[in-house]
Amino acid sequence: MIKYKNVNIGLIGCGTVGVGVVKLLRKGISKKYGININLKKIADINKKVEKFKGIEYARNAEEVINDPEIEIIVELIGGYEPALTYILRSLEKKKHIVTANKAVLSEFAPIIFKKAKQKNMSIGFEASVCGSIPIINILLESIPTNIKSIIGIVNGSTNYILTKMREKDYKDALKEAQDKGFAERDPSFDINGLDSTQKLAILFLISKGVYIKSTQIYTEGITIITKRDLEYAEELGYTIKLLAIANFSRIPELRVHPTLVPKTHLLSSIEYEDNAVYITGEATGPQMYTGKGAGMLPTANAVISDIINIVRGKSYDIPEFKNKTIKIKNHRDYKLEYYFRFLALDKPGVLAKISNILGIYNISIASVIQKEKGRYVPIVMMTHKSLEGNVYKAIKKIEKLDCIKGRANLIRVLDI
Amino acid sequence: MIKYKNVNIGLIGCGTVGVGVVKLLRKGISKKYGININLKKIADINKKVEKFKGIEYARNAEEVINDPEIEIIVELIGGYEPALTYILRSLEKKKHIVTANKAVLSEFAPIIFKKAKQKNMSIGFEASVCGSIPIINILLESIPTNIKSIIGIVNGSTNYILTKMREKDYKDALKEAQDKGFAERDPSFDINGLDSTQKLAILFLISKGVYIKSTQIYTEGITIITKRDLEYAEELGYTIKLLAIANFSRIPELRVHPTLVPKTHLLSSIEYEDNAVYITGEATGPQMYTGKGAGMLPTANAVISDIINIVRGKSYDIPEFKNKTIKIKNHRDYKLEYYFRFLALDKPGVLAKISNILGIYNISIASVIQKEKGRYVPIVMMTHKSLEGNVYKAIKKIEKLDCIKGRANLIRVLDI
Repeated sequence: MIKYKNVNIGLIGCGTVGVGVVKLLRKGISKKYGININLKKIADINKKVEKFKGIEYARNAEEVINDPEIEIIVELIGGYEPALTYILRSLEKKKHIVTANKAVLSEFAPIIFKKAKQKNMSIGFEASVCGSIPIINILLESIPTNIKSIIGIVNGSTNYILTKMREKDYKDALKEAQDKGFAERDPSFDINGLDSTQKLAILFLISKGVYIKSTQIYTEGITIITKRDLEYAEELGYTIKLLAIANFSRIPELRVHPTLVPKTHLLSSIEYEDNAVYITGEATGPQMYTGKGAGMLPTANAVISDIINIVRGKSYDIPEFKNKTIKIKNHRDYKLEYYFRFLALDKPGVLAKISNILGIYNISIASVIQKEKGRYVPIVMMTHKSLEGNVYKAIKKIEKLDCIKGRANLIRVLDI
Repeated sequence: MIKYKNVNIGLIGCGTVGVGVVKLLRKGISKKYGININLKKIADINKKVEKFKGIEYARNAEEVINDPEIEIIVELIGGYEPALTYILRSLEKKKHIVTANKAVLSEFAPIIFKKAKQKNMSIGFEASVCGSIPIINILLESIPTNIKSIIGIVNGSTNYILTKMREKDYKDALKEAQDKGFAERDPSFDINGLDSTQKLAILFLISKGVYIKSTQIYTEGITIITKRDLEYAEELGYTIKLLAIANFSRIPELRVHPTLVPKTHLLSSIEYEDNAVYITGEATGPQMYTGKGAGMLPTANAVISDIINIVRGKSYDIPEFKNKTIKIKNHRDYKLEYYFRFLALDKPGVLAKISNILGIYNISIASVIQKEKGRYVPIVMMTHKSLEGNVYKAIKKIEKLDCIKGRANLIRVLDI
């Protein structure tokens, strides 16, 4: 006979993921672990929210937090405030936290984890990064040995848009992503790379036990990418992905930017709204974890796994925070391969002028494509490994040439 | 200040993985978890084994098991006996177990887990399936919701051989795998699919809490596959992989066999000695986990993650064993698409005869390739979904046709 452990939980915020949690709980899925999860109270700011039968709706979040019978608070409202206040107050009242909130964690992790430790409470945040992929659990429990790098496709909206841009323009691809629910009405947070940046900050934190503000991460969005770049990339044997990269060299590189990924690399096969995290460990070698990065049920699955693990007595032991600021590599010190696209007058000597400037800055060319016809034609170049500071200087000079029109497009190449 | 928990462990069997464990422990990797792992004693049957300084070598396994200061026994000898005896005796003496032994687990899981429960001890066996991929932890902790299917490339040797067979014959591919250490001198256990079968039994056990003997799993090895099949598969848009498949329909399908995998499927990109597990969950949707499936350090990483998790108080709570035998689908009841290759006389009417027989058994043809020249030529056919019992009957009849030489080659197509 299984003896069920009973646990009362309270839910703050019942949007898409919250509804998913309610639906999954109703299937009694935790029974096989010998756990009875009782969703005792829900608080949602929208009083017109769809009500589930048999669940008590609280007047406000405070009522859920103050309920002495509730042991775990599931915070699904997102954003900085009032989420931070609710989380801290819940911990103060000795309640465990399960959250899907990447924003509040990436910004206030030191405060939240300090409070949790002080009160001896657990924080489950599997749902905050990459929805259904248990990347938090994997990093905290399954790779105790040294990690050399983490590369993630951690934003489904932009991956969907970039996948679709092989057939259509950015604007149409974005519209389709919005129509299908893979991009927000205001997509700026995703397409500017900031969503990826917050997730990278969390991955870095749990891998290295060092907190960095997401504003310290070098970030570029996907708006510079055109359908034409995707076509040239294809021709050169690459696809373009928005990657979140943590490279744990002596001075860590932390960067989010569109990246040329060789088609032979596993990350190149991650399409549409899927997410993936590619980890290279000293002992493990390369590994990749992929799945749905968002959505009602995939994210709710992560929330419920956190609840069950907390009830089973597992706490997420974050490696001790090092209370120091660390030096992060300036992007001008990156040494990578680069893709340039210039728009140049179609006349003799142009290539020579460009090559001369590149030579001055010690940038050597790996391949060139120039094939279209017209007054101005695109010239696409791939370089060997070069210092990014030099690349910026060279590009600036090249853009000033009379034969060059407008700005150059610069995309980094994946080096792992 | 971190206060270290100290734990004494004993190692039984110090072959490749054991040496990896010693090497990783010497790097002090568990320190960030606040844990000091002290490898107190090693027992190895080979008295000439390379000795590490500062570690005590026991006369035999019993001496390690009987040491009252040792809290965790790491069993790395493999095979059924004496591994089973050592594991049970260790549990009896209230020592936790960490093992990489898929054979003993797939055969004696009910006995081992019952004893562990009785003695309130933990068993870590992350290293027993897919080396560095934390598939045990993921299945036990991260997907509490319903799993619909698990498809794995869980044997590195055969995956290496099949990858190489695109360029060379089976014999040469096997030799290369052996030379590189990816296949055993006697490769029969791998190439006959039995290694995959044992791993599938473990994955099924922890997913569904039901024990099945590995002999209940329908198993075919890779020896029927030829370079020619790989070439035809390529032309048809597929690659061939040895897959371990658990399909959790009402009557579960459990099968290991070479499979045509569409090139659009993520599993098709898993090459050489890599492993991968593709899981489709009701809530999660499809997910894939990939990495090194074997090797000194990747497997040692898994062993050490188990040790750390046990010290941190996490026990692998296997879902309650259901003490019942379950019905598994007979392979003649599979309904799949199939690839056939016949060697047929190159004369008019042959295709009609084959098609007639297929028609009688309700097998409809999706595509045909016949293009080589000679007295006997290969005919390759792909079918729509058909009942395997019928397919077997039809093939038997076709093989008896005067115009057909030898046996037909039959390969199943991935249906998930």
